Amino acid sequence: MSRLNIQHAEHARHHPLFTENPALWENLGGSLRLQHVQGGDRVLTYGDAATSLWLVYRGWVKLTRQTPDGKETVIGLRTEGEILGEASLFANASYPYTAEIVGADAELASVSAVSVQALISKDARLSSRIMALLNERMVQAQLKLEHMSTMSAAQRLGCFLLQLCHTQAGGAKTLQIPVEKNVLAAYLGMKPETLSRSQQQLKPLGISVDGHQISIGSIERLRDFVCESCSQSGSCAIDESD
Amino acid sequence: MSRLNIQHAEHARHHPLFTENPALWENLGGSLRLQHVQGGDRVLTYGDAATSLWLVYRGWVKLTRQTPDGKETVIGLRTEGEILGEASLFANASYPYTAEIVGADAELASVSAVSVQALISKDARLSSRIMALLNERMVQAQLKLEHMSTMSAAQRLGCFLLQLCHTQAGGAKTLQIPVEKNVLAAYLGMKPETLSRSQQQLKPLGISVDGHQISIGSIERLRDFVCESCSQSGSCAIDESD
Repeated sequence: MSRLNIQHAEHARHHPLFTENPALWENLGGSLRLQHVQGGDRVLTYGDAATSLWLVYRGWVKLTRQTPDGKETVIGLRTEGEILGEASLFANASYPYTAEIVGADAELASVSAVSVQALISKDARLSSRIMALLNERMVQAQLKLEHMSTMSAAQRLGCFLLQLCHTQAGGAKTLQIPVEKNVLAAYLGMKPETLSRSQQQLKPLGISVDGHQISIGSIERLRDFVCESCSQSGSCAIDESD
Repeated sequence: MSRLNIQHAEHARHHPLFTENPALWENLGGSLRLQHVQGGDRVLTYGDAATSLWLVYRGWVKLTRQTPDGKETVIGLRTEGEILGEASLFANASYPYTAEIVGADAELASVSAVSVQALISKDARLSSRIMALLNERMVQAQLKLEHMSTMSAAQRLGCFLLQLCHTQAGGAKTLQIPVEKNVLAAYLGMKPETLSRSQQQLKPLGISVDGHQISIGSIERLRDFVCESCSQSGSCAIDESD
């Protein structure tokens, strides 16, 4: 683990948490610690005291839980610019999932729960911003649940890809998704063979898959296919930050 | 709409928002306004400015959204003691769903967004409590999503019933659920015929359905059947308030 250097700090500054709260950046930016983590390594463990908030700087993280009858469920996939361990925002909370790096490796920045909680208790505008972020996250979870009923598997895969595009613009885009097929399928709530079939169904729309690289010929065309079955069509959290 | 009378006020006081924040009750309790709403009537509309926070005092509310291709999705069912319109906690937000009364009628208490926001900005402990509530709501939405993969339809129905029992104790319980089969099925993410089949599958566990009345012979037995396929087994938000 190493002190966050200037380059990394500048990158982290672009997280919505900081861009919308410059004061937070001034107070926390210097306390961020960078950790380089190998693929397969665990960042945090379900049930442990939530002592840190994490920011994904580069790479992919898989969030899982186990059921008593032995199933592993993938409840989240987080990548660049997203946070982990939001439970650390609350006193005496524990992590509600285990987080492990997928792909070759990743870089994460962490900050102690104590520092964040102290800041929140002093700054009402910050609390209000964090509440809005939590609410947005909840709306996203509800939306994903809605999609289980309203969307086909191919549309759900398309929606996942659109979110990774981080843009409301059209045009083409190439994405690197170093997540194994069974993990991605589990996250999308489908079987691996359904994921393969969905990839085939997206081909006529100009989506091609080559290993972990996915090329999208026309974001607009993909959006036409996906968003007509979503109640938030056109106003979801796909942002324009990129 | 009428000013909340003493009896209603005493009831609303038992909402977690108030039991864990007596100061909030002292500041808002007197501003709560009671509304008696007929079945089928609309309480709030998707996209409208979120000007009020609502507390369900009695009855059932269905939260829906429409997709552009014409599907209605049931994203929530709220009953006694629960809140509606949490978007009103944030400045300039709009309601992310339409809320309509199901069953014969309902009683709701409302309070203006302005009053709530003013209180939050003055009280850091209150913000922190509301953040925790939002996080809990998000964890519940994630859990419901997880159940789409880990649970059978009968287990998902069982989980919904357990949540309505509001207890960690065993024993028997009778519930009144005046929600039409197609609405309940949509909420649970299954077809109406799957819901009927699920009810049949729960019969050997001592669950019997008579119109809108559901009798649970042994909560413990139902929990054994449901919770082994849930990663939060034994530690979910089923509270002990009842």
